[in-house]
Order: sequence, then structure tokens, then C-alpha cells
Amino acid sequence: MSSSQIRHILDLSPKERTRLVDSFDCVICDCDGVLWTVFDPIPGVGEALKTLQTHGKTLRYITNNSVRTFDHYAAQFRTLGITLTPSDIIHPALAIVRHLKSIHFEGLIFCLATQPFKNVLINAGFELTEGPDQPLEESFKKIIATVHDRAPVRAVVIDVDFNINYPKLLRAELYLKNDPKCLLIAGATDKVLHARKDFNLIGPGHFLDVLEQSTGRKATVLGKPGKELANLVGDIFGIEDRGRVLFVGDMLEQDMVFASRCGFHKMLVLSGGASKDDMLQERDVERVPDYYADRLEDLTKLFE
Amino acid sequence: MSSSQIRHILDLSPKERTRLVDSFDCVICDCDGVLWTVFDPIPGVGEALKTLQTHGKTLRYITNNSVRTFDHYAAQFRTLGITLTPSDIIHPALAIVRHLKSIHFEGLIFCLATQPFKNVLINAGFELTEGPDQPLEESFKKIIATVHDRAPVRAVVIDVDFNINYPKLLRAELYLKNDPKCLLIAGATDKVLHARKDFNLIGPGHFLDVLEQSTGRKATVLGKPGKELANLVGDIFGIEDRGRVLFVGDMLEQDMVFASRCGFHKMLVLSGGASKDDMLQERDVERVPDYYADRLEDLTKLFE
Repeated sequence: MSSSQIRHILDLSPKERTRLVDSFDCVICDCDGVLWTVFDPIPGVGEALKTLQTHGKTLRYITNNSVRTFDHYAAQFRTLGITLTPSDIIHPALAIVRHLKSIHFEGLIFCLATQPFKNVLINAGFELTEGPDQPLEESFKKIIATVHDRAPVRAVVIDVDFNINYPKLLRAELYLKNDPKCLLIAGATDKVLHARKDFNLIGPGHFLDVLEQSTGRKATVLGKPGKELANLVGDIFGIEDRGRVLFVGDMLEQDMVFASRCGFHKMLVLSGGASKDDMLQERDVERVPDYYADRLEDLTKLFE
Repeated sequence: MSSSQIRHILDLSPKERTRLVDSFDCVICDCDGVLWTVFDPIPGVGEALKTLQTHGKTLRYITNNSVRTFDHYAAQFRTLGITLTPSDIIHPALAIVRHLKSIHFEGLIFCLATQPFKNVLINAGFELTEGPDQPLEESFKKIIATVHDRAPVRAVVIDVDFNINYPKLLRAELYLKNDPKCLLIAGATDKVLHARKDFNLIGPGHFLDVLEQSTGRKATVLGKPGKELANLVGDIFGIEDRGRVLFVGDMLEQDMVFASRCGFHKMLVLSGGASKDDMLQERDVERVPDYYADRLEDLTKLFE
């Protein structure tokens, strides 16, 4: 589909609305930008989710944000009137644990991520090493001597790390270069973090780029739009028919590409990081949604 | 010239040797990788420099390394038997001071660099703001609130910063996005730092890339191979005829491209970051040297 043919769901005819509503049994929503933003609530979200449930649609969530703990997510969903259970939501830390267990991974992990992310790995039984967090003396020679510690690291895991710094990147680079078998695994690879309207900031994907360029490696990506996550998701959520899933997201790269890779129907909402102009200018078919809406709330009008 | 035609200077005939030696009055050397490496001295360098002086060649130095102070450089050159004066050497911090003075810059500078670099700017009378150096609480909202300080910053300067971190990059991004007139000025833009043979590490240029990508700006580059430095260098060193300069460096990008942009003769030495294979595989004419040698010492054999 070319981007000029994308229909706003409220421009659909009554017949098309019915056809769309009947085309999916399960709605998978991204969270940031769809359910809420960093700074603002998005209107009508709680009601929209409840309407979908009332009409027999299964709800699931996939976010690239592992910074919140499950308890935080559960509390946030409670404000929307939704009871969240652990099996309803995937974020990169959970997907990485699942992946590591599936490959029977053993050994030390060097982890560039936030503490909530690290806790998910620790609670799953993995052993982590991390840092340095404090500034080091300004000597290239001494910094190399510090970070080149030859610890028996068997995987470098990189996600959002609000305090990522040059010594940590150098340390990751050295583990990866010293041991061709050391894995490189990424969670969120967003190049842009959307904070509020017209306010996008440097995302964690840039730092993965630095590591990939300096080591010549390609990461296994277990956040959206990672192919490895797309392979896992049906299994995690017990999805039998990917053609009966509607994926709702606010980002062209993370959400639409991911949904394309999964074989889901894909709907873009304009309540987050992507504008209507971004969507209309997009030429990459993987990044182009099947439908769009201003916000999740619009979807409920199809049931009226 | 295609890379397969590049001659090793010791393969030149006696007549060609004489012609090469007579073609330049001034030798400009890169430092790291040509005069010394991070870990090892390079043999024969002191003698080579003295031979060049004895034969009436003027010596000058251009390095991308502003991490050493002038006193450190002077001490390092003394071990080679060379007396260095401040006007003999350019590094990015000095070139940036010169540039800022030439444009009559006034105002606050946000500086991502090492302390020796910052001291050059401070000693030239500029006012800097810097940091945060310490890790911040892991909340995107709080980090934005901290770094989005709306200080009246009129230039972001980025060079090697061994403790560069995400909050500093975010802070730079916000100054640049909030004020279209805020300048973006870069020193060293090396993507690779060469430590020793077959041991290359992440260079500072990656972080400039992140800023350029996230802000849509292009930096004024006052380290090698910056066009802006190439414009300034003749003036700084009082060079009357760029065609009478031999530039000696160890990096294809920083040194050969820079020398191409300056209109210098260019010689690659294999004592640093680039290997003979790198050179032979190179197809970009700006990155291909006119001659090559194993090390600076080889040049003295042309005078025998």
C-alpha cells in the first residue's frame, strides 16, 4: 500500500468498519505514545481498552520501555481501569530473559541498561557485571587498563541506559572483540525518544550503532522492531493466527516495521512520536500502516 | 592516482628521490602514530626530525589530540631532541580558539571535552559550562528537567571526552534545538582511536554523529580532516605555497583527506592506524597518499 492510500479509521464506511472490527480477535498495543506519553495522559484510553474487552477482543501490550518495573506498569494500567497480569506484557528485558533461557545461556553478562532492566535479568538467575558509572581519570591508557578487565563475559546486553558513557562502551567493545563467541544482544534500539509533541530526543539505538560499527557485529534485537522478537512474539502470547491480530503503535520504525515483520494488521495512532506528515512521506512499505487514527479512542467508535 | 600506483619512498630511483626531496620546504607531521603511539615509541623519529631540519626543512605539527597540554607536548618533543615552540603545533582546541576569535564570538560555551582542552578555551578568555559528570537518577523526565536548563549557551563544542555520557549529549542536543543560532563546533572527529597494532577503539567522532543526526546540524570541524581547519592552516602556519608542503600522517581519513583538502603532498606512514592493506584497498582519491613509508625514519634515507 502506498502511504497516500492509508485510511483514517473514522473515514471508513459502515461496511468497512464492520469488516475491520471482525478482522481481529486480539489487539496488541504499544504503551508510550499510545496509552500515555512521558508528560501527558492520552484522553479516552481507559474507555477504549474497556470497550475492546467488552467486545471480546483480547488485549496484549508490547513496549520497548523496560525502565518501568512490572509493579509500575500494573499501577499505571490500574489508573486506566485495567488489571494487568505478567503474561499480558512484553518488554525487552523479559524478551531477553526468554531468549537467553531458550539458548540455555550460561555465563557472565555485561549489561548497559537501567536498574529495573537489570533486576529482571538478575531475578531470572543471570549474573551481571556493569559500570563504570563514575567518571574516570582523563587518560586513554588508564581508561583502557580499567575497562580491559578480561572478565569472562559471554554476552553484552544493551538497552536504554540513561547514564551510558564512553568507558562502558569501550568495555563492551573489548569483550566483543576479545571473544568472537561473546553475544551482542539489544533491547530498545529506538534512535528517537518521543517526550511530547515536537519534542524528540536522542534514543538508545545510537549507542548500539556505535558498538556495531566498532566491532563489526550485528546484534540480536529483542525489542521492537527486532526480527528475533518478531519470531518469539507468537509463542510468548500464544497467538495462533497472526492474521487475526491488530497492532496499534505510534512509531513508524518500532511499531509498524515490527507489526509488518509479525504479519499483524497495523494501525498508527498520531498521539505519539509520528506525525501525519511523517506517515504520508513514508515510502518504505514495512513502515506504512494499514490504517491510522488520531488516538486509540477512535477505535471504539467502530463499535458504535 | 589509484592506490596500486602508490610508491614506497624507498623504491624511488635516485633521481626520483632527489625530485621528491626538492619538492617541499616544509614537513607537517601528525603526532600520534607518526612520532609515537599510545603505548610504544616509534624508532628513529628524533633522528629523522633532526635530519629534516639539518637539510633546511621547516617542521610543523598538526594533531587531533588536544588531551595533552602544550607543556606535555614540549616535554615529549624534548625526548626526541626537538625544541617545540607554541607556534609549531596546532591541535583542535587551539584551532577552535582561533576560529572563535576570528568570528568575534561572545557568550557561553557548552563544552564536551577533556580538562586540558577546556583549559585552552578558558585561558583564551572564553566562559564554559560543562557536565553533568555524575550519574543521574534513572528517570527520563528528571534527566530532561536537569539538562534542559535553558542556560544562554551560544556554542556547543565537542572533542574527545573520555567521560562523555548520555545526559551531556542530551544537554547539547537541547541547546542546539532551542537556539538555531547556537553554533556546533567539533575538534577531533576520529571514528577510530588507534592504540597499538591491530588495536583500534571507539573514537569521538561517533558522538558528533549522534548530535548531528539528532539535531540535523552539520558541525564546523576544526580538527583534521575538517574543511574549516584546512582553510585556516595556511594562515596559522604562514604557509605561502601549499604545493611546497609534505604532510606525513598515519590515518587515511584524518591525515590523507586533510592533506588533500589543503593541497599538500601527502605521505602515509604505516607506523600507526592504517595498514598497507587499508591503503591498497582504498578507492577514494582524497584518502589515497602520494607516497608511503614504513615509518618517518625512511624519509631520512632520501637524504643519504
